[in-house]
Amino acid sequence: MVKQLLESTITSYEIRDIRFPTSQHLDGSDAMNKDPDYSAAYVIFYTDSKGLEGHGLTFTCGRGTEVVCSAIEQLACKFVNKSLNELVKDMRATHQICTGDSQLRWIGPEKGVIHLATGAVINAIWDLWAKAVNKPVWKLVADMTPEEFVQCIDFRYITDVLTPEQAIEMLREKEATKVQREEEMLKDGYPSYTTSAGWLGYSDDKVRRLIREAKEQGFTHFKQKVGSNKESDIRRASIIREEIGDEGVLMMDANQVWDVTEAIDWMKDLLKFKPLFIEEPTSPDDILGHATIRKALYPQCAVATGEHIQNRIVFKQLFQANAIDYCQIDSCRVAGVNEVLAIILMANKFKVPIIPHAGGTFLVEMVQHLSLIDYICVSGSLDRRMLEYVDHLHEHCKTPVQLKNSKVTPPLVAGYSVEMYRQSIEDYTFPTGKIHQKK
Amino acid sequence: MVKQLLESTITSYEIRDIRFPTSQHLDGSDAMNKDPDYSAAYVIFYTDSKGLEGHGLTFTCGRGTEVVCSAIEQLACKFVNKSLNELVKDMRATHQICTGDSQLRWIGPEKGVIHLATGAVINAIWDLWAKAVNKPVWKLVADMTPEEFVQCIDFRYITDVLTPEQAIEMLREKEATKVQREEEMLKDGYPSYTTSAGWLGYSDDKVRRLIREAKEQGFTHFKQKVGSNKESDIRRASIIREEIGDEGVLMMDANQVWDVTEAIDWMKDLLKFKPLFIEEPTSPDDILGHATIRKALYPQCAVATGEHIQNRIVFKQLFQANAIDYCQIDSCRVAGVNEVLAIILMANKFKVPIIPHAGGTFLVEMVQHLSLIDYICVSGSLDRRMLEYVDHLHEHCKTPVQLKNSKVTPPLVAGYSVEMYRQSIEDYTFPTGKIHQKK
Repeated sequence: MVKQLLESTITSYEIRDIRFPTSQHLDGSDAMNKDPDYSAAYVIFYTDSKGLEGHGLTFTCGRGTEVVCSAIEQLACKFVNKSLNELVKDMRATHQICTGDSQLRWIGPEKGVIHLATGAVINAIWDLWAKAVNKPVWKLVADMTPEEFVQCIDFRYITDVLTPEQAIEMLREKEATKVQREEEMLKDGYPSYTTSAGWLGYSDDKVRRLIREAKEQGFTHFKQKVGSNKESDIRRASIIREEIGDEGVLMMDANQVWDVTEAIDWMKDLLKFKPLFIEEPTSPDDILGHATIRKALYPQCAVATGEHIQNRIVFKQLFQANAIDYCQIDSCRVAGVNEVLAIILMANKFKVPIIPHAGGTFLVEMVQHLSLIDYICVSGSLDRRMLEYVDHLHEHCKTPVQLKNSKVTPPLVAGYSVEMYRQSIEDYTFPTGKIHQKK
Repeated sequence: MVKQLLESTITSYEIRDIRFPTSQHLDGSDAMNKDPDYSAAYVIFYTDSKGLEGHGLTFTCGRGTEVVCSAIEQLACKFVNKSLNELVKDMRATHQICTGDSQLRWIGPEKGVIHLATGAVINAIWDLWAKAVNKPVWKLVADMTPEEFVQCIDFRYITDVLTPEQAIEMLREKEATKVQREEEMLKDGYPSYTTSAGWLGYSDDKVRRLIREAKEQGFTHFKQKVGSNKESDIRRASIIREEIGDEGVLMMDANQVWDVTEAIDWMKDLLKFKPLFIEEPTSPDDILGHATIRKALYPQCAVATGEHIQNRIVFKQLFQANAIDYCQIDSCRVAGVNEVLAIILMANKFKVPIIPHAGGTFLVEMVQHLSLIDYICVSGSLDRRMLEYVDHLHEHCKTPVQLKNSKVTPPLVAGYSVEMYRQSIEDYTFPTGKIHQKK
């Protein structure tokens, strides 16, 4: 049965511009993203095996989704008439189908719109692969040999810090104990923290109420958005610290609003609330800037970033420059599972823990797989590691993330957990869907 | 008359996907770009003043142009019904119309497709502005006060190396002598070098012939593409060195094909041909990698990059890390004239000479303005500075670059020198234009 499905051929694809009007309630609002409409450039690959479909997406914020869909169109067409078996036998080559087009490369390379599109397409191939072998993506990877794992990765431009041989060696170290970590995860789940309470657009009362609710759910780590108004940041930090006590962990997130010196000055006034880290203190492109900020705040407050880091090459340098303490991989910003595996390996080499970014459309559904892969195959550690839990839009997902006392239960359904209900796809397609017709 | 045109209002816009089938002759071929079809995402702003149009473009390589056009659509629509006067009074704010949309920002920020689109749109506004005041763009900028010059720049994320106040001071130093440099340029022209001979797809005989022709035209600096095959690089470098003698200057360009250690190893075998610099030795995203390569080859061979550097923030770090000896600004990769001005100022602070990238559709037409601005307003120096001259496609441009004995004559026609003939626009529009109908 598995063999038969792997022998399927991709016959066609469908691209959808999906938009949820979340800006109406300021869910997801922060100092940079004042009114995001959580959205997705969504792609479905259809095959000649009845019912076997690969679903993939990249998270977007409303306007601009059509641009990413236009880029997906340029990539998805390359996969029609390809056999799944041929694609998954060499995922490195499959990744290069997207990144290696010498004409398309000019509009990247490997960054921004074309790379977000690559993420959606590659993720859809993983979803297809995992469904064909009837496993969730994390289990598909956990069952790989080190050689198979490494074959998924394009090492171009990162061999100065990690070669395929070194990667295989790293994976071999953890191979014998993979099974016990897998069992532990299935039993206990993976720890998480919540961002749902700290959005900038919420009132003080709403923040206090949401923090209390989250505490009742078992959360011990909480994230606050900062950077728009210092007085308000201080007031809100007081409220949160009051609610979570000394034992609660507070993280802060500036969403890139500051210049380098401004970040240092602003954070010095917030250090008294003992933030674990400041996330995205400045431009995601500023590797040396992050290193400067980290040095200035060390050891009182750590630095985290990742959701806007364009590819493995910039992550490589963040590690080389000792610029970050936490690596916030994103499941779609880079070239899907393939490139995330490269980043997880490099993070492990530099002993930087993985805390994925998940504030977005179905991101937590995907990154749960990635944190499980990190724990089971690569780092073997839960130290300073958590998933980000954001409580939005899960109702549109066929296999929403499962939370038990703030721990995420590993998904067991085959695939990458992002498949949307058909009705949601139809209703939220922009601009024709039902939801966009109401005034 | 000037006042009246500046009071015009933008009424509509037209976007064209223009493609030249240059891959048929391997013009522009290099180790990374094997078969580029020199193209452009082209935008025209129309106004309520008869005949006053702003033309802007960003260079692309064929496939992917439609994606950039889709992004231009998202930006150009923001300019309809805006008065030109209002737009040019505060070009920093005008730039932020493109970069500050909080939803569109997600698909960048300030990089890749959305930033290429910003380049096209901002360049079109400069073309419009310059035509309204009846000056070429370089003269429009040369006539600005330091304060007006600085008002064009978004300093976000670069204030740790350059503040507006420092920029004004830098410009004041050169203000008194601007007029004499302007006169010198109008009399002598700006030095240039040629890339037209060194494309990778050309035969040895063709290279030899083109080098001889270029020497006859007065060129003393020549560029060779490298990185595909070391033996062939050595053979061709011998031919070129033979033709140009010891006094000729040879530059090499790898177009990003190497990893960091590979770049160092490969170049060590080419040092005997005394290259002035190696251009794009590795990924444009690898700031620290460029620094490592530069250190390893110093002082025998310098390092240059820029055509793929995504924005001012990455240029800032290339300067901070001492990663490059030559700054190859591109007129379209970043947010048009505005952001280039920021980069020119930073380069001057770090004493890195400007050698613009011009291998592409009408790029030399634009960058001649930028090098003139660098010389007249900012650096006041021609030391180690040249324009890149590539002899393609000028016949489609109404105001093609003028060369006299390898020196570029400053353009005198109002605007940014990129306006295409209407017939060329129609014929080369993809996929409907006449040229794309032939088989």
